[in-house]
Amino acid sequence: MTKDEGRRTISRYCTPRHGGGKLHRMNIHELVRELREPADTKIVLLVADGIGGLPLEPGGKTELETASHHNLDECARDGVCGLSVPVLPGITPGSGPGHLALFGYDPLEYRIGRGILEALGINFAVGPKDVAVRGNFCTLGADGKITDRRAGRPTTERCVELVKKMRTITVPGVEVFVEPVKEHRFVLVFRGDGLGGNVNDTDPQQVGLEPLTAAEVRQQTVPAVPTDRDSAKTAAAANEFIAKAREVLKDDAPANGITLRGFATHPNIVSFKDLYGLKAAAIAVYPMYKGLARLVGMDVLDAGQSLGDQVATLRKVWNDYDFFFLHYKYTDSTGEDGNFPAKVQMIERLDKVIPDIRDLGPDVLIVTGDHSTPSKLRSHSWHPVPTVLTAETCRTDECEEFSERACLRGGLGQFEAKHLMLLAMAHAGRFGKYGA
Amino acid sequence: MTKDEGRRTISRYCTPRHGGGKLHRMNIHELVRELREPADTKIVLLVADGIGGLPLEPGGKTELETASHHNLDECARDGVCGLSVPVLPGITPGSGPGHLALFGYDPLEYRIGRGILEALGINFAVGPKDVAVRGNFCTLGADGKITDRRAGRPTTERCVELVKKMRTITVPGVEVFVEPVKEHRFVLVFRGDGLGGNVNDTDPQQVGLEPLTAAEVRQQTVPAVPTDRDSAKTAAAANEFIAKAREVLKDDAPANGITLRGFATHPNIVSFKDLYGLKAAAIAVYPMYKGLARLVGMDVLDAGQSLGDQVATLRKVWNDYDFFFLHYKYTDSTGEDGNFPAKVQMIERLDKVIPDIRDLGPDVLIVTGDHSTPSKLRSHSWHPVPTVLTAETCRTDECEEFSERACLRGGLGQFEAKHLMLLAMAHAGRFGKYGA
Repeated sequence: MTKDEGRRTISRYCTPRHGGGKLHRMNIHELVRELREPADTKIVLLVADGIGGLPLEPGGKTELETASHHNLDECARDGVCGLSVPVLPGITPGSGPGHLALFGYDPLEYRIGRGILEALGINFAVGPKDVAVRGNFCTLGADGKITDRRAGRPTTERCVELVKKMRTITVPGVEVFVEPVKEHRFVLVFRGDGLGGNVNDTDPQQVGLEPLTAAEVRQQTVPAVPTDRDSAKTAAAANEFIAKAREVLKDDAPANGITLRGFATHPNIVSFKDLYGLKAAAIAVYPMYKGLARLVGMDVLDAGQSLGDQVATLRKVWNDYDFFFLHYKYTDSTGEDGNFPAKVQMIERLDKVIPDIRDLGPDVLIVTGDHSTPSKLRSHSWHPVPTVLTAETCRTDECEEFSERACLRGGLGQFEAKHLMLLAMAHAGRFGKYGA
Repeated sequence: MTKDEGRRTISRYCTPRHGGGKLHRMNIHELVRELREPADTKIVLLVADGIGGLPLEPGGKTELETASHHNLDECARDGVCGLSVPVLPGITPGSGPGHLALFGYDPLEYRIGRGILEALGINFAVGPKDVAVRGNFCTLGADGKITDRRAGRPTTERCVELVKKMRTITVPGVEVFVEPVKEHRFVLVFRGDGLGGNVNDTDPQQVGLEPLTAAEVRQQTVPAVPTDRDSAKTAAAANEFIAKAREVLKDDAPANGITLRGFATHPNIVSFKDLYGLKAAAIAVYPMYKGLARLVGMDVLDAGQSLGDQVATLRKVWNDYDFFFLHYKYTDSTGEDGNFPAKVQMIERLDKVIPDIRDLGPDVLIVTGDHSTPSKLRSHSWHPVPTVLTAETCRTDECEEFSERACLRGGLGQFEAKHLMLLAMAHAGRFGKYGA
C-alpha cells in the first residue's frame, strides 16, 4: 500500500456533515480507516487466555503474583502496563467477545451467535452465507416424544458414524454441512443466499415432549432491526433436515432423533486487513481461537501443538506478516480446573518463551488475556486483565513487575479492551494525526 | 440569569422520551444545559500546548519531569491531578480536535475541516455560511498541465501581490474572500446560503497532470447523513473562480495557476456562552488558537506577544469575564523542534507565571495541554496529558508534584478530555444536581 492509499479517506475528514441535522460521531472503525498509514513495523499480540486471577484467600497472592516470571517483569519495566476491561466492569466474557474486543471489535456491537461459535470451535470455515446450528442427538419414543435429550451420551466415534449417515441428507435450495463435535453434539450449517438466523431452538429443554418445530421468530430487540434475510426459509430447511434425519436415524436408537439450537448467521465482520491494513497471522493451537482469527480474516497458520512450536512458527513467518496473534490456552484451562499451582506453572512456562519473541524484535509486543480465569472461581470472570505493552514510544511508568497489583499503577490505566489495538497501531507508527 | 432560568430545562429531565420506541440517552451538551446554574465564579483554563512528553531513553525522565516547577508542584499538592486522553487511547490529535475536546466538544462529533482550520490559522473570522478552502499557486505549462505544484515557492510578499490580483475576481451568487498565507499558500472562502463542503480537491497531487475539476463528492460514511447544503453549487463557484484566476494570473508564471483542496464548511458549533452560560475570553498569541476560540464564540482579546503580556491582559479583564482560556505555544513548538532542553526551559518559564494567575484568585485553575508533544518524537502524540485542577472543592490525592508519573496516581485518573469542562463547571459551583 502506498502512502497515498493509506490516506485515501482523508477527504472524509474535510467534509464534516452538519447540513440537515444531527452530527455524526465517528466510530472507532471509521477513525482507524481514516488514520491508518502504512509502515514496516511488526506487532505481536500474545493472548494468555484467562491470565488474570484471584488470591485464594483475601489479601493473598494471585496466580500471576505467585509465579516467577522475570521475563514478563522485564517487559513491565521496559514498557507500559495496565488492566484491560474486556467488555464492561462486572461483565464476564466468553472467548468470542473476549477476543473480538482484543482485535478491536466492540463486543457489544459484533456478536457471535452460539451456532457460529460451535462451528468455529471445530475449525469449520464459516462464510457470510452460512447459518450455523448446534445439534444434539436425542432419543425419541414411539410417540415421538423425547425420552433422553442426549441420546444416552454416545461415544464420539459413534457420533462420527451418525454424522456420516446424516451427510446423505440433501435439502433443495441450500447446501448442508454436518460435522461431529463430541458425544451427542454436532454442528449443522446451512449455506445459501439470504438465509436468516432468527429461528427458535427445537430442543424443548425437557423430556416427555416432542421436539419443537423450527419457525421464524420475530426479533425482540428494541428497536427492531430490519433484515433482508429470510429466517422462514432457514426454518423450512431445518424442518426438512430434521424429518430426513429421523428417517436416516430410525434404526439408530437411542440416537434416533435430533434437536437443534443456537441458529446463528455469520457476523459479517470487516476484516482485519481491510480495517487496519495489517497482514495478520494467527498462531493458535486450539480450534476455537483459530476460528475466531479466521472470522476476522487472519491467516491461520499451522502452529503445531506446543508453545515451542508456536514460537518456531512465529520465527519462520516473521518476514511474511505485520501482525501476529499468538494464543496460549493453558492459563485458562488450569484456571477452569481450579488448579492454582498448575496455573502458576503454566504462567512460568509462558514466561520462558518471552525472550524468544522479543529476540525477533517486534516493534510492539503486547501480553494480555481475553479475560481472567481465577482458579478460585473455576471459570471465566469479569476481573480486569493484566496487560503489558513494550515499544520504543512507551512512557515509563512505575511498574517493576507484571502482576495484577503492579498493573494498577501502570500508565495504561484501566482501559477497554476494544481500545488496545488503537494503542498497538499508534506505537507501531501506523496512525496519522486526527485533524490538523 | 436568575436561578430559575438556570433550571429552565428541568422539565426535559422529567419527560424521558420513550413513547414511540427507543429511549434517548442524554448527551453531554444536553446535560450541561440542564444542570448549569449561574454563579459568580471564575475559571482559568491554561493550555500548555503539547506539554506531555517522553523520556529520551527508557526509564528516563520526561521534559516535565526534568524541569524545575515548584509553582506547578504547589498546584498539584493543593489540587487534584490526572491524565487527559485527548480523543481515545492511541489517537494523536491535531490542534483543532485537541482544543475542541478541552472546550467540551466531542472531537469525534465536532470536526473541523482542513480549509476552516487554515482560515482560523490566519485569524480569518469564518462564519456559518462559509466554505473555506486551502489554495496553492502552481505552475501550468502551455498544455494546461502542472509543471510545479508550488509555483517555484514564491516569497510571501509575492504571495500577497498575487492574492491582491485574485481579489478582483467575482463569482455571482457568492461572496469571495482571498487571503495570503505563506509562500505558495492562500485561503479562499466562499460565503453564501446553503453552500456545501463535499467537493473534491483539484490538486492532482503530481506534476504532469491538469488540475482536476471541482465537483460534488458523495459522502462515503455509513450511514450517510442527509444534508441540506448544496456542494454542487460550491463546486460551480470554485470552477468559475479557478478559470478567472487563470485569466488574472496568466502573465504571472511560474505562479500562473491555482489548485484548491480541503473544502470545508463551518462546523456550526454551539457557542460556549449558550452551552455553559459562561462569558469567555481567549488570551492567545497565535492565530490558530484565537481562531479556535472564536469558533466557539469566545471573545478574542489582544493578548500581546508574551506570556507576561497575556497575564497582564488577564489581570486587566479579570472582572469582565467568567472564563479565561490562556494558550501557551512554546511547550509544543520546542517539542516539535525535537529540542528537549528548550522544552524544559519553556515549562520553567510557564511555571513562573503561575503565582500571578493564582493571585487573582480563580475559583478553578486548570493547567493541561491539548495533547503531548514529546521532543523525542518531534510531533504531537497520543500519550495522555498531565493535568492539574485547583479549587476549594478538590479531594486531596497523593500527587506532590506535577509530572506524567505523579499524575498517574492523581484523583482525576485518566479521563477523556471532553469531560474536563464538566469538572471545571462542578468545581466552580455552576452545576445543579442531576435528577432528584
